[in-house]
Amino acid sequence: MCLRCPIFPYMVRYILKHLFFAHSNTRGKATALLLVAQAILLVLFGLFVDYDVAAGPRNNSLTTHTTLAHYYPIYQDVHVMMLIGFGFLMTFLKRHGFGSVGFNFLLTCYVIEWSTLVNGWFGMIGSNEGRILIDIKSLLEADFAVAAVLISFGAILGVASPVQLIVMATIEVVCYNVSIYVGIHPLLTYIQVTDVGGSMFIHAFGAYFGLAVARVLYKKSQTLSKNEGSEYHSDIFAMIGTLFLWLYWPSFNAGPASGTERHRAVINTVLSLSACTVVTFALSAVTDKKNKLDMVHIQNATLAGGVAIGASADLIVQPFGALLVGSTAATVSTLGFRYLQPVLQRNIKLHDTCGVHNLHGMPGILGAVISAIVATIATKDAYQDSYHELFKDASRTSSQNGGYQIAALVCVLCIALLSGTLTGFLLKLPVWDNLSAEELFEDEVFWDVSGS
Amino acid sequence: MCLRCPIFPYMVRYILKHLFFAHSNTRGKATALLLVAQAILLVLFGLFVDYDVAAGPRNNSLTTHTTLAHYYPIYQDVHVMMLIGFGFLMTFLKRHGFGSVGFNFLLTCYVIEWSTLVNGWFGMIGSNEGRILIDIKSLLEADFAVAAVLISFGAILGVASPVQLIVMATIEVVCYNVSIYVGIHPLLTYIQVTDVGGSMFIHAFGAYFGLAVARVLYKKSQTLSKNEGSEYHSDIFAMIGTLFLWLYWPSFNAGPASGTERHRAVINTVLSLSACTVVTFALSAVTDKKNKLDMVHIQNATLAGGVAIGASADLIVQPFGALLVGSTAATVSTLGFRYLQPVLQRNIKLHDTCGVHNLHGMPGILGAVISAIVATIATKDAYQDSYHELFKDASRTSSQNGGYQIAALVCVLCIALLSGTLTGFLLKLPVWDNLSAEELFEDEVFWDVSGS
Amino acid sequence: MCLRCPIFPYMVRYILKHLFFAHSNTRGKATALLLVAQAILLVLFGLFVDYDVAAGPRNNSLTTHTTLAHYYPIYQDVHVMMLIGFGFLMTFLKRHGFGSVGFNFLLTCYVIEWSTLVNGWFGMIGSNEGRILIDIKSLLEADFAVAAVLISFGAILGVASPVQLIVMATIEVVCYNVSIYVGIHPLLTYIQVTDVGGSMFIHAFGAYFGLAVARVLYKKSQTLSKNEGSEYHSDIFAMIGTLFLWLYWPSFNAGPASGTERHRAVINTVLSLSACTVVTFALSAVTDKKNKLDMVHIQNATLAGGVAIGASADLIVQPFGALLVGSTAATVSTLGFRYLQPVLQRNIKLHDTCGVHNLHGMPGILGAVISAIVATIATKDAYQDSYHELFKDASRTSSQNGGYQIAALVCVLCIALLSGTLTGFLLKLPVWDNLSAEELFEDEVFWDVSGS
Repeated sequence: MCLRCPIFPYMVRYILKHLFFAHSNTRGKATALLLVAQAILLVLFGLFVDYDVAAGPRNNSLTTHTTLAHYYPIYQDVHVMMLIGFGFLMTFLKRHGFGSVGFNFLLTCYVIEWSTLVNGWFGMIGSNEGRILIDIKSLLEADFAVAAVLISFGAILGVASPVQLIVMATIEVVCYNVSIYVGIHPLLTYIQVTDVGGSMFIHAFGAYFGLAVARVLYKKSQTLSKNEGSEYHSDIFAMIGTLFLWLYWPSFNAGPASGTERHRAVINTVLSLSACTVVTFALSAVTDKKNKLDMVHIQNATLAGGVAIGASADLIVQPFGALLVGSTAATVSTLGFRYLQPVLQRNIKLHDTCGVHNLHGMPGILGAVISAIVATIATKDAYQDSYHELFKDASRTSSQNGGYQIAALVCVLCIALLSGTLTGFLLKLPVWDNLSAEELFEDEVFWDVSGS
Repeated sequence: MCLRCPIFPYMVRYILKHLFFAHSNTRGKATALLLVAQAILLVLFGLFVDYDVAAGPRNNSLTTHTTLAHYYPIYQDVHVMMLIGFGFLMTFLKRHGFGSVGFNFLLTCYVIEWSTLVNGWFGMIGSNEGRILIDIKSLLEADFAVAAVLISFGAILGVASPVQLIVMATIEVVCYNVSIYVGIHPLLTYIQVTDVGGSMFIHAFGAYFGLAVARVLYKKSQTLSKNEGSEYHSDIFAMIGTLFLWLYWPSFNAGPASGTERHRAVINTVLSLSACTVVTFALSAVTDKKNKLDMVHIQNATLAGGVAIGASADLIVQPFGALLVGSTAATVSTLGFRYLQPVLQRNIKLHDTCGVHNLHGMPGILGAVISAIVATIATKDAYQDSYHELFKDASRTSSQNGGYQIAALVCVLCIALLSGTLTGFLLKLPVWDNLSAEELFEDEVFWDVSGS
Repeated sequence: MCLRCPIFPYMVRYILKHLFFAHSNTRGKATALLLVAQAILLVLFGLFVDYDVAAGPRNNSLTTHTTLAHYYPIYQDVHVMMLIGFGFLMTFLKRHGFGSVGFNFLLTCYVIEWSTLVNGWFGMIGSNEGRILIDIKSLLEADFAVAAVLISFGAILGVASPVQLIVMATIEVVCYNVSIYVGIHPLLTYIQVTDVGGSMFIHAFGAYFGLAVARVLYKKSQTLSKNEGSEYHSDIFAMIGTLFLWLYWPSFNAGPASGTERHRAVINTVLSLSACTVVTFALSAVTDKKNKLDMVHIQNATLAGGVAIGASADLIVQPFGALLVGSTAATVSTLGFRYLQPVLQRNIKLHDTCGVHNLHGMPGILGAVISAIVATIATKDAYQDSYHELFKDASRTSSQNGGYQIAALVCVLCIALLSGTLTGFLLKLPVWDNLSAEELFEDEVFWDVSGS
């Protein structure tokens, strides 16, 4: 059916003409591969994807209308985080604003489609269902996969071509699902941990996958580029991203939860982020020689509280506990930006454009550790009817639950680093529009900026 | 009652003083007419408008509280689309940022008031009710009228004075309602089609009305202006608009629906927009000589998927169908920007500042055609309890329903082009602060930019 | 417990080292006091704050899940107003963008924590409860305290150091609660008025508190600074703030309400803001010598309709009444910016950076007066079941209710001006990183702008 659709002849002609015959030596021509990818996605959706009953034909005797109301406002918040939040956060680079917000947009859209399929396939494991049934929750879960990919994107911002990014995203979504399958999936009961806001499965995974890719792609020229830096207005654009991420982070962490757990996740996240911001301002000033604030910290480390509270957002950490988590995250993240990042760049040749190690990597690990502590001290009395919803394996003790949180973290890190490294080597193959030294952090390469 | 209000003496004095006696030869003085307009609106609201029972005195024995919860989050999303979405999308012009975001703001507010009245009057046709009863749904419907006007605004951005825009909006809201009355109104059963997201009644109407106005206002000098172009930061501002339009478009298309149809409209719109974005990036690169991406395409054509899925968003197009609609819309829109727009400008003297023909016009027509196809293949079995909610005339066959979708499109286009042309000639009268050649696309004319 | 937490040693070392030994004569070192403040907040939260039952352990036999759904979307809107709305509105200054959006961010986060405590303590007066139980409504109320502080911030934008701002916020939150306690608290039945949108208790209070501080801090050099002014792009950034404030203002005014009152508050606010915007455009143009629009008016006076309808948003003002309120507010605000502000600066040495007197001060008073009029004409017949929810003291006549609205306004103004003046003198003490003449309105002082 798809093969008869009217856009096919155009597609084929353009791909042939532009890829192989036309203007040689131009960047961006591999972008045509996106047409092939979209065509394949179209076919796969035709073969596998259907509406869930809540979005299907109406049956007035069923009440299926509450799903949308339960998820939609939160979904939209998360959606804003992906495109405005991540997109604008990355516009801090002075000559890479188009690429930051643009490729962020492209990656988001591509991954929404691709992860709907991959998430669905992994969800089908062990069931007899041959179709992926999608509803608003599927869209929310697709956005979580998007988040992991965009975090990785941050690590290689300005040093990869759009086609390299698409290839990376394609692989990463699969590995992301493997990691979730190993750590959370209801069928695989070995580990089965709790991580409502994705400290481990989204933030740590996305960060270490991206950092592994970044390490492999490292070139000395990256550290010498004059374009890698901000200017006054690009830093203000970036604050749009920071603030929308900060504002809607409670929706990100509370999205998958329901009942009083969702309510608690909102409160914990707001408190953690607030304390994180206060401490970030303080540390940014006191660690500077002239006691001046650094925009990089304000744009990034203020968000670490959202990452670190992720895995325990729906747990009973107590309000003061949430403040403590946020304060600790701010400390780890700000000191990471100030002291650790230059060391890693010099010593292990890790160039991390957006500092995702400080915003998502270490705070993600911190979040896992906190969740382990909170799980260890959790009691059935304290959680009442939600205890076995949060800690699913009724045969385990609380300290065992704590231990499994750490085990899951180790799994996630291994999968991320291994798959990221392999992906990095794949991206080094010279077929993907790779960038030369003078093309780094520069919109000129892929964008028509003549009018600008 | 209104005549006794304290602001009247001020108003009258200012109008008299500034319009007729003061500084001659200044632009913007006709802006004072807004005071007269606002006074008239105030009187008309006093005569006609009242709260609906859901917003009136509380009667605890009635359950009227669900209306607000059902519409409010979606209303706010649509509201953001109007002011941030359309407003910032138009800031791409390098010397017309104030005018873009400012007049967009003014038009939105004026049309919220005016369309509340006009929508209400049309809604009263055939009823004995002498008052317009407003609730949150009325506000949502007012925003739909705003959308039509803002689309038309895009076609003449930078070439019309605020007073010309207000006059245009005043007329357009009436014509917009005529078109809806002919095509959808429950009393007029001749046509009565389905168009939940307004592909025809909002997008195609707004676009062709505006294009007709633009054609009549055409001056050769428009095409020579050096101000018509973007710069680096204005293009990033415009992306704020693009992304908020993209993000909240599902709310626009799903807003009027309920039940599983609303859920489906969200899913279809997200999928269509995602595919549209991927294909837009691909085509923008492959059709460029140097394979570089064009910001105009990324800012606009990525949204065509929202327009094209509009009329069939709540229909069962299937997930792969939504991707196909988005891919097709991207193709039509991107190729329209690249190839058709320059041809139209040269050959039929159509200057379309924002390219609304490519974003709203052609994709709107495409949306109508798609809805006709989907209506034709619709069966009562497939739609179950919602079949006659979507296709109201129970005496028609499915293929008749499909035919009526096309008939409605033809009506909309005729009304839009005819009324737009007449409005254009009215706006050419030299009483409306008309702009001279050197004043085009330039904030200096209407804004105090001395401090800037 | 807190003393054992791992971040303490770091904190103590940094405070000691940087405050007392290191680089002398640097601005911003007092920022380290934030670490002390955060540590104290942590302890106080540990001592006093707990989850409300709606966010506590789940008890499936209770239905506590509706609180979150009732408040969350509205809370998020209000939250966006604080950080994006206020934050970006203040970026109009050409060399103070970092400080505007940054210190706004810091203040918001600090006040969320601090006001959760102070609001809670005031709420505990007269009860035996020893713990502050927080839920989503507490977070919303914290944001209302944030709003008051950010309004005051606007009056001294660019002339105070972050530490001065934190000290001001610390005191202001207490005084804000005193004012609410006197005017609204259910225990203190002397006054007990209605003010759903905070015209008096948030806007007038915040404005006059801030103006009193600004008056005391006044230095001649403020009026001579070349940095106090906008540039083209900073004015467009500011419009992001304006529009998000405008868009989400209905949530601000309707947030605390429920039932048909909430619905009505949304409608009244949208109508008032729309009329306000139209009239602001008109008056901005007609009062200018060259009939040009002034961005200051468009950014600010367009919002006065939200302030002025605040106290009567949930009352039956009728739709035309809402338009009248908005039109009047626009007139007061725009003429205030144009004519009154320069007079106040010359004659009583009041320098009001953001013009909060015109946006929050006078429109706040106007709102109180309007609410008095509406309360006076209110009848039990007209309001039915909500009459005694809105006007709590059943022993009063309607005109008495009107009188009490004015009495509350007088109380608010007295408390605000008195406490603001005292706070101003405290801030003049030379221990708070005070700014010298050449440091005003300049990011250089507190921010590392070397890369920018």
